[in-house]
Amino acid sequence: MGEKHGGDFFIPGFMFSGISAGIKDGKEKDLALFYSVTPATVAGVFTTNRVKAAPVLVDRMRIKGGQCQAIIANSGNANACTGKRGMRDARAMADATAEALRIPRELALVSSTGVIGKPFPTDKILSQIPNLIDNLSSRALLDAAEAIMTTDRFPKVKMEKCSIGGKEIRMCGVAKGAGMIMPHMATMLCFVMTDAAIERAALQRALLDAIEPTFNRITVDGDTSTNDTVLVLANGMAKNRAISLNFADYPPFKDLLTAVLLELAKMTIRDGEGATKFIEVRVEGARSEADAKKVAFSVANSSLVKTAFFGGDANWGRIAAAIGRSGVRINPNTFDILLNHVAVALGGMETNEALQEEAGQVLEGDTVTITIRLHQGNAHTSIYTCDLSTDYVKINAHYRS
Amino acid sequence: MGEKHGGDFFIPGFMFSGISAGIKDGKEKDLALFYSVTPATVAGVFTTNRVKAAPVLVDRMRIKGGQCQAIIANSGNANACTGKRGMRDARAMADATAEALRIPRELALVSSTGVIGKPFPTDKILSQIPNLIDNLSSRALLDAAEAIMTTDRFPKVKMEKCSIGGKEIRMCGVAKGAGMIMPHMATMLCFVMTDAAIERAALQRALLDAIEPTFNRITVDGDTSTNDTVLVLANGMAKNRAISLNFADYPPFKDLLTAVLLELAKMTIRDGEGATKFIEVRVEGARSEADAKKVAFSVANSSLVKTAFFGGDANWGRIAAAIGRSGVRINPNTFDILLNHVAVALGGMETNEALQEEAGQVLEGDTVTITIRLHQGNAHTSIYTCDLSTDYVKINAHYRS
Repeated sequence: MGEKHGGDFFIPGFMFSGISAGIKDGKEKDLALFYSVTPATVAGVFTTNRVKAAPVLVDRMRIKGGQCQAIIANSGNANACTGKRGMRDARAMADATAEALRIPRELALVSSTGVIGKPFPTDKILSQIPNLIDNLSSRALLDAAEAIMTTDRFPKVKMEKCSIGGKEIRMCGVAKGAGMIMPHMATMLCFVMTDAAIERAALQRALLDAIEPTFNRITVDGDTSTNDTVLVLANGMAKNRAISLNFADYPPFKDLLTAVLLELAKMTIRDGEGATKFIEVRVEGARSEADAKKVAFSVANSSLVKTAFFGGDANWGRIAAAIGRSGVRINPNTFDILLNHVAVALGGMETNEALQEEAGQVLEGDTVTITIRLHQGNAHTSIYTCDLSTDYVKINAHYRS
Repeated sequence: MGEKHGGDFFIPGFMFSGISAGIKDGKEKDLALFYSVTPATVAGVFTTNRVKAAPVLVDRMRIKGGQCQAIIANSGNANACTGKRGMRDARAMADATAEALRIPRELALVSSTGVIGKPFPTDKILSQIPNLIDNLSSRALLDAAEAIMTTDRFPKVKMEKCSIGGKEIRMCGVAKGAGMIMPHMATMLCFVMTDAAIERAALQRALLDAIEPTFNRITVDGDTSTNDTVLVLANGMAKNRAISLNFADYPPFKDLLTAVLLELAKMTIRDGEGATKFIEVRVEGARSEADAKKVAFSVANSSLVKTAFFGGDANWGRIAAAIGRSGVRINPNTFDILLNHVAVALGGMETNEALQEEAGQVLEGDTVTITIRLHQGNAHTSIYTCDLSTDYVKINAHYRS
């Protein structure tokens, strides 16, 4: 996943750093910095969980100013359920970064991910900020991507380019996340850097539009985290005419952002805790997109469907049961279920033995599309999930120990 | 669980049978009969899943008559997603039973549980009905209870008595269910036999009232099955004055039924697929009971909470995250979390190290109560669930093979 060399992930005017600050037990990287040499336009979306981590509360206030120049992020501790002290810690971490970089405090944001409810190791972090800044490099994005990993098995980075208004625009996104993945919204940290020039309102609108078919369409385990954060920084170094909502430049920019987020969302699912299979649940022929989404999530969050897929068992009856309990008024006598291109159920009933066997072979692969046709209308949607394995349980039974 | 001798489960006027009809691969029992020597008043509730198994559709029609004398039930095949043939099969199974017992067809009900979507082995069942009837005995309830088991590790039977109107009333419930357990409603099969005399309307009301705090408060995996059925048969052999809704006799009858269902519901959770721990999630201080239920189910269905408990990790941060994503407007700064009597979080924050360690010891037991105090009102509820283990995944990865 992702390209091999950090050097490929170059965005004019951005620098990165990732080091070990001793927050995690081993020598793994756990502290990251994303820095723009000039103030960048910023847009953000945050967790809908009522229990919000301190850095989320700090960032929500700070991005109201519309600009950002630095994001400091750590793994190993979520700084969530930490009360007033947690708020002081999050602000101290951002403010110390701003001071060391000689930028205004309001331009520094902060993100944390890891265990919830533990006292935050602010002293360790503050003492490592000079070291973090010393390591800044325009070629070090992979270091930063590694430093925000928790149970992730690989860093998630996606680079895209396009031409807007005659200028080449580069965009690079970084994400972490493998468990506690369920909209709304992303249940993860994601930082996107671009050299595009874009107005604030257009950037926020593009982010909201791009989140919907990407991070709002994935689920690992139905759990929404306290720390979800997606931030997009656009520093304007491409010198394109600043994109505004009504310009012809807006759609290609939104498409670029959507492409980057979709790839990161899919990487997050491929890296789902213990996952052995990437599963697309596609619902077609629904009365409305809302109906399609309900059915798709009911199937994607079914532990019974997910364990059957882990076992390579094309047990479509469990898919049928999940469709039926979705709350949507489906017709039990008209739905079809396909695994890739193999029909396992037509009109609510099993197809022939040969097709069932073929479906079993489909599940030997590591990528499966479940297509559900409801035959009730024209709306459709796709969401992405993974199987539920014994490793998921093992990883999460002993996460803190 | 349950008492040892089938002979203890005696209800005047009821006879039972459980045999192997070769529906399952081995020689396990898989066909059961519950028979009342006189027509009994009947009440029933069925799955809310839009995909309903054929026997559910048949029974829903037949209980409109208000009386029942026999229930034939099989495991090994759910007769769900089987179309018109499935409907014919379900009716044939009930009708053949009625004919052999020389009772009117409308008084015979049918239930099935097992794999969804496979052709139903009607011939095997029909050929075994004479044998099934030959084995009828007032002492054979445990045989019948075993014959409806699927992944259950033990038969679930509960006997209770009380005095109503000067007469001793006996009541015995039988249930099966270990996976695909989630309201509404029971996600299982449950048959209750009593010798009470009771009017039809009172029996149905008592069943609905008794379901709410029992089978509608349990979850193993959030999946609702296509075959859920609870039937109560009251044959009047106790010769009490027939209970009606407005009599003083109604509350003790309802309490008796609730007690039987609660015990069966708890047994179902103790037998949850792969379960190593029985967990009560108790929410107090909610604005409404609906709020309390939402929070409790959000916690009880969290894979992350359930895997942490399997690992013996008192990771309350995951409970906090599940509270926050429940959709209820909780206050993130006022909630408390206790494991048994040990406070792990107060006012939304972690308590001291000593209490965290004590909480770890609580999780060494096989029964844990999570108490969540929201401090927003006076409503409360309890729901029951189990942990999520590697065995749950193993059981469900290879259920059909």
